[in-house]
Amino acid sequence: MHLFQRSHDCGSLNKTDVESEVCLSGWVHRYRDHGGLIFIDLRDRFGITQLVFDPAHNKEIHQQAEKLRHEWVISIKGKVMLRSSETTNLELKTGEVEVLVADMQIHSKAKTPPFSLSDDFIDIHEEIRLKYRYLDIRRGPIANTLVSRHKAMMAARKYLDSLSFIEVTTPILGKSTPEGARDYLVPSRIYHGSFYALPQSPQLFKQLLMIAGMDRYFQIAQCFRDEDLRADRQPEFTQIDMEMSFGTPEQLMAIVEGLIKAIFKECLKKDITTPFKRLSHKTCMELYGSDRPDLRFDMPLSDISDIVKNSTFSVFLDQLKEDGIVKGLCVKGGANMTRKDIEDYTAFVQKFGIQGLAWMKMQENELKSNIVKFFPDDVQKEMIAKMKIEEGDLIFMIADLPGTANQALDHLRRKIAKDRKLIHEDRYEFLWVTDFPLFRFSPEEQKIDSEHHPFTSPKFADLPLLDSDPIAARSEAYDIVLNGYEIGGGSQRVHDPEVQKKIFDILKLTEEEIHSRFGFFIEALSYGTPPHLGLALGLDRIMMILSKTDSIRDVIAFPKTQKASDLMMACPGTVAPAQLNELNIILGE
Amino acid sequence: MHLFQRSHDCGSLNKTDVESEVCLSGWVHRYRDHGGLIFIDLRDRFGITQLVFDPAHNKEIHQQAEKLRHEWVISIKGKVMLRSSETTNLELKTGEVEVLVADMQIHSKAKTPPFSLSDDFIDIHEEIRLKYRYLDIRRGPIANTLVSRHKAMMAARKYLDSLSFIEVTTPILGKSTPEGARDYLVPSRIYHGSFYALPQSPQLFKQLLMIAGMDRYFQIAQCFRDEDLRADRQPEFTQIDMEMSFGTPEQLMAIVEGLIKAIFKECLKKDITTPFKRLSHKTCMELYGSDRPDLRFDMPLSDISDIVKNSTFSVFLDQLKEDGIVKGLCVKGGANMTRKDIEDYTAFVQKFGIQGLAWMKMQENELKSNIVKFFPDDVQKEMIAKMKIEEGDLIFMIADLPGTANQALDHLRRKIAKDRKLIHEDRYEFLWVTDFPLFRFSPEEQKIDSEHHPFTSPKFADLPLLDSDPIAARSEAYDIVLNGYEIGGGSQRVHDPEVQKKIFDILKLTEEEIHSRFGFFIEALSYGTPPHLGLALGLDRIMMILSKTDSIRDVIAFPKTQKASDLMMACPGTVAPAQLNELNIILGE
Repeated sequence: MHLFQRSHDCGSLNKTDVESEVCLSGWVHRYRDHGGLIFIDLRDRFGITQLVFDPAHNKEIHQQAEKLRHEWVISIKGKVMLRSSETTNLELKTGEVEVLVADMQIHSKAKTPPFSLSDDFIDIHEEIRLKYRYLDIRRGPIANTLVSRHKAMMAARKYLDSLSFIEVTTPILGKSTPEGARDYLVPSRIYHGSFYALPQSPQLFKQLLMIAGMDRYFQIAQCFRDEDLRADRQPEFTQIDMEMSFGTPEQLMAIVEGLIKAIFKECLKKDITTPFKRLSHKTCMELYGSDRPDLRFDMPLSDISDIVKNSTFSVFLDQLKEDGIVKGLCVKGGANMTRKDIEDYTAFVQKFGIQGLAWMKMQENELKSNIVKFFPDDVQKEMIAKMKIEEGDLIFMIADLPGTANQALDHLRRKIAKDRKLIHEDRYEFLWVTDFPLFRFSPEEQKIDSEHHPFTSPKFADLPLLDSDPIAARSEAYDIVLNGYEIGGGSQRVHDPEVQKKIFDILKLTEEEIHSRFGFFIEALSYGTPPHLGLALGLDRIMMILSKTDSIRDVIAFPKTQKASDLMMACPGTVAPAQLNELNIILGE
Repeated sequence: MHLFQRSHDCGSLNKTDVESEVCLSGWVHRYRDHGGLIFIDLRDRFGITQLVFDPAHNKEIHQQAEKLRHEWVISIKGKVMLRSSETTNLELKTGEVEVLVADMQIHSKAKTPPFSLSDDFIDIHEEIRLKYRYLDIRRGPIANTLVSRHKAMMAARKYLDSLSFIEVTTPILGKSTPEGARDYLVPSRIYHGSFYALPQSPQLFKQLLMIAGMDRYFQIAQCFRDEDLRADRQPEFTQIDMEMSFGTPEQLMAIVEGLIKAIFKECLKKDITTPFKRLSHKTCMELYGSDRPDLRFDMPLSDISDIVKNSTFSVFLDQLKEDGIVKGLCVKGGANMTRKDIEDYTAFVQKFGIQGLAWMKMQENELKSNIVKFFPDDVQKEMIAKMKIEEGDLIFMIADLPGTANQALDHLRRKIAKDRKLIHEDRYEFLWVTDFPLFRFSPEEQKIDSEHHPFTSPKFADLPLLDSDPIAARSEAYDIVLNGYEIGGGSQRVHDPEVQKKIFDILKLTEEEIHSRFGFFIEALSYGTPPHLGLALGLDRIMMILSKTDSIRDVIAFPKTQKASDLMMACPGTVAPAQLNELNIILGE
């Protein structure tokens, strides 16, 4: 059989092709037998073209066409014809023409798919979609995200290449240096009892490449974390990973802004505005109670502790005595909320460990609520000024420890915005969050952890704090936030082996741990290390936002479930005893 | 400390920059203290620039410069000056200028490296180079291969993107479907006793993407094989992997030729000639005794069985009776070989299980050797004609079973070419080998194996042979060979689930094996599969050839040894008992 040679894809024919002889290949998407004429919508990745089988034109081919069913794969030859004006479909790129079929090859038949592929709005259980991933991709939306992901990767590579960044492939079979997340392990057949680990990120490799003098590195890298998965996590995920020597944070941020601009331009044909807004971590927490605020809407938080300490409202006064704060937000036009609305928001914040939600409405130019009487006029005046309360607004206030209050208000702010449709879905609001603390204290484990990772450089001015008060030290780290998601983060790295050792000491790593896990790296630092800095962007997260989906599984070709299994391949799965024998490992009971 | 902002890299200054104020950063490569003046060669990835520290110009900076040692990392500010004509170094891009240093920042000191980084021709034991990989990269040659590899990947991506191929990332955590090579396994923490496997190639995923309608896929993919490693193998390696629907082998071959052309153009600025030569597997074995012949030199093999059967040379006659063949090659000008040379070649072929190596020289217009007397004149005449023997040539002949004879003659042919310097090192001789057998019989295991893999399509004309004589069936497969290396291979795939099942049956997979390993894939084939075909190129192998190195480790940033260990990180390594407990696996004794 000599395969017909496709002349066009199914998305490309139009009026200018009328009378041309063409050859198309694809899947039978829709099938209509109008007594005499048979109409078929032929589909491929690029679009849909209507085929006509006319018994008066070719009786034999028409008879073959009668056997066709949904999803059969065919190639046809025929002539492009103009559709009559009443059958023109202007929603399709190819909607003004059809192809009168003269010859056909049937490549393969198809069983009836487990779900319809020609209905756009069908609601299919995700387990079925994942089991038949190849059919789900065929439906269209997932294919579009994959094409978009390809475009994003191409745009990123072209951009970084143009700035002399070199893509270097780093190993997948690496060393287990557990911290933060759990490693996936790979038993060694040659060294029984030894294991490789899949990389959580190429962090050490990219720093070694800077030590190696590669100057500017990038990689679109697969990373692995054996964690219990949330909705937007996968056991393997993709980072646009970069590192540069001799640069400044300003330079890196400008490069990253250009990178994101290039990706958005390519995928959405959208010009995003640079430079991005910047907020210090401290200011960000004050204004939004979060280090990844959604800036597509306003509604900042206000700390009114200093004002309401002059009230007589004991709930506030008691909290202020216990190291608590009083913080609130002003909902523009929120005075139209019902008692039920307010009760619902109260129940909502209680999920975050908050006792109560105080509120006041500004109506007829005065604050009204059941607690207004505890707030003297001058206190009210100061509140109105600080929170910018206007006629028709409502304010919510929370009194609690700063961490709890911020967390609850962050969630409340986002929930109100969603409920009141304050979020512009087509806006992309980027933010750099800078000046993170270098460490955080983990009360559960009673120990100090890195806020980012142990290779993050302290701010130069804060170096002395490493000895005196490490928790107060700020880092030269910067996260990049888009629409309430952290889409990446980076930092200046430590390039002095002494400082690196000091940080490991603060993290209470023993000499032995330092030596066995990072010994080679500290040694590497001692052979002449350039100042270097870098950043990694979460590609999956960015593609989720670009594709306007809530599920990370929609932007990955063959994703795993939240239980880390591949339903299509039935994986992970059992293996032959001989395979385990060779690895000298035994399964526990 | 405010970092100096680099204005140029160390490879870019020239005469046109004289009198400019510049800022450079890099490593102290060479250091010369000429009494008063200190000269430093400053190095970065891009080149070397000479710095001058003059006490008359800046005494304080000159004093600091006295402390500098090899591999310290510095930034300097200074003015570009023309070198005097006697100190100009035309071998360096920057050799006409030097920078008179006005200010300096010392970023980091360096311990004395374990080997010199400023001597180009030093011979360092590879174990040391691998342990200090970051220093070995800094030396230059490895860095150059990494840059070249980046360029090759960029060129491949741009080219394939321009042809509507979409790069899709497929999972690293896959399913174990052992065949051919051993899988690396990853124990699952969630499903105790179950394992993921690292992919040996994305073969099934890319075929599923064709079933999914993605039309044209590519990926520069990491692949994994837990095999005992030869010099040019690594446990993880990189493929340029591609697949397309509705295409013909002719189209695919043209696309691949264009791809290779693009890579060579980018990396070597070389225009290679397309289309490439083609030989059927059968012809290739006849002419070169190998399916990956080095065509940078001639010296084909000749089967002279039909001629020498009329001789009286019993060694040949006995072999011919035992299903053997007599094959030979003609060494142009080889009559100058000494008895010792011939003895050495005889010993060489004996390593491949050959009894003896017959030879004749053409001198004074007649064949001469100790065995000529067994060959009547007309036999000699036919031999001369067939083997194109001319005055001054030598022929070698081997009588053995075809497989053994071909293997020995292939090695002999290459050894002679190397010894006699017949190989043009700057030539790139590509070859398509087509019409491979679909299966091969493994005498050790007494079973039929796939010559390539079980998804390879038989030639359409040979489909009936699957039932009658599968070993005789040819496949629609094509390997691509460069300078004696197989650099890639591809095929038309089976797109009919019935044919696919028949092939699994011939391979003697049980119903249960087929179901558990490939059940999902056979099911996928049944929902409407386009005819599809694809190919994978071994990027590491290509980069080895481009970089003119014999070691695959030279083209990988962080390679493993032949025992699959990373000497820099000391990996694989032991892990904490808690990690194994979570996976519920126990180490054997």
